[in-house]
Order: sequence, then C-alpha cells, then structure tokens
Amino acid sequence: MVDKILEVSLLYDFYGQLLTSKQQDVLQLYYYHDLSLGEIAEQLSVSRQAVYDNIKRAEKLLKSYEEKLKLVEKFLFTKRNIECILESIRFVESKVDDKDKELLDKIDLIKEIASNVLDV
Amino acid sequence: MVDKILEVSLLYDFYGQLLTSKQQDVLQLYYYHDLSLGEIAEQLSVSRQAVYDNIKRAEKLLKSYEEKLKLVEKFLFTKRNIECILESIRFVESKVDDKDKELLDKIDLIKEIASNVLDV
Repeated sequence: MVDKILEVSLLYDFYGQLLTSKQQDVLQLYYYHDLSLGEIAEQLSVSRQAVYDNIKRAEKLLKSYEEKLKLVEKFLFTKRNIECILESIRFVESKVDDKDKELLDKIDLIKEIASNVLDV
Repeated sequence: MVDKILEVSLLYDFYGQLLTSKQQDVLQLYYYHDLSLGEIAEQLSVSRQAVYDNIKRAEKLLKSYEEKLKLVEKFLFTKRNIECILESIRFVESKVDDKDKELLDKIDLIKEIASNVLDV
C-alpha cells in the first residue's frame, strides 16, 4: 500500500493539474488526508461507489499520462544521476588541497546547483 | 518565426503525445516538414481553413498543458543548471593534479553523468 501511495503521489505531482478539480479533490482526500471512501462520500454528499469509481478513473488517467509522456520516469532518471554527481563531487572535495579556496568554491557551487536541481 | 518554431517544437516534444493523432500529423507537417497550409490541406484532402484551425487549436492545447504543468520551464531550468555543473567541473579538472588518476576518473564520471542528463 505504501508503494501504491508513493506511486500515485508522484504521478499526481506531475499530472494532477490535468485532472478535473473534482478528481483532484477526491485523490487528495484519499491519498494525502488519508480519509476512507465512506468519509469522503459523506463529506462530498455522494455514494461510496461514486467515490471509488472517481478514484479509479483518476488513477487510470494519471497512469495513461505517464504511459504517454514518461515524465516521472525521466524525472527519476535525472534524480538518480544528480545523486551520483553529488556523491562523486564529495569524493573530489575530499581529495583536493583544502587550502585552494578558488577550487573549493567551485566544488561548493556544483554541490549547490546539483541540490537545486533535486529540489525542482 | 524561428522562436515560434522552437517554442512549439519544445512544447510538442513534451506534450505532443497528449494530442490526437490528427493534431500530431498537422503540427508535424507544418513545423517539422515545413509544408505550407495549402500543401497540408491538399495532402490531407481538407480545406486550408481546417488545417489552420487545427494548428491553432493544437498549439493552444500544448500551451495550456505547459501553463498547468510547467514541465518545459522545469526542463530548461535543469538544463541551465547542468550546463553550469559541466562548466564548473571543467574548471576543477583544469586545477587538479593531472597524475591523480582516481580523481580524474571521478571528474570524468561527473562529466559523463551530466551529459547523460542533458540528453534525456
């Protein structure tokens, strides 16, 4: 279930804005606020079945966007690569002359930029 | 016009798969194969006006996806940052002891990974 939540959350981060506001509301209540189908049904004054159908339809849409655009896949690839860059630059940092301020500044800059990219 | 072509091409690279195949065809003929509206109309056996409307509608859709998802904006931000990393790591490379193979290998790895990210 944790994997499912993470998967849908990531897809939602990327493609959520393409869903209707109703679909966004239902997914947020279910995945972010951890409400049950019954609680969401009560809150929105609709049937439990309607909530369930809405969630399934929204999840299917998110997955279809990913199948077409592969943006989450590309994001995860970039993220792993940036983490490798950070790891490698820390190794470089440990090896260079710690009195060479100009060089250390450049290394700090690389670390900062790489962290910025991870935060996008 | 060159800016317009570049803008639409970039949007198309990201969101083209969300368009109908007819919209994809028309945009490709117009922007990638550089056909005129009249030539496309003839090729698809539709009116020049229909081709024009189709292109405008498709461009509007691509822009609406970007307004919602901002993925091209994020991509360009990442690209600029990776280019900064490459520039900085080349500076680091020029400063380190060129007999330290372990260190130079790590620097090469960073350059390779950064280039991979740019190619995604």
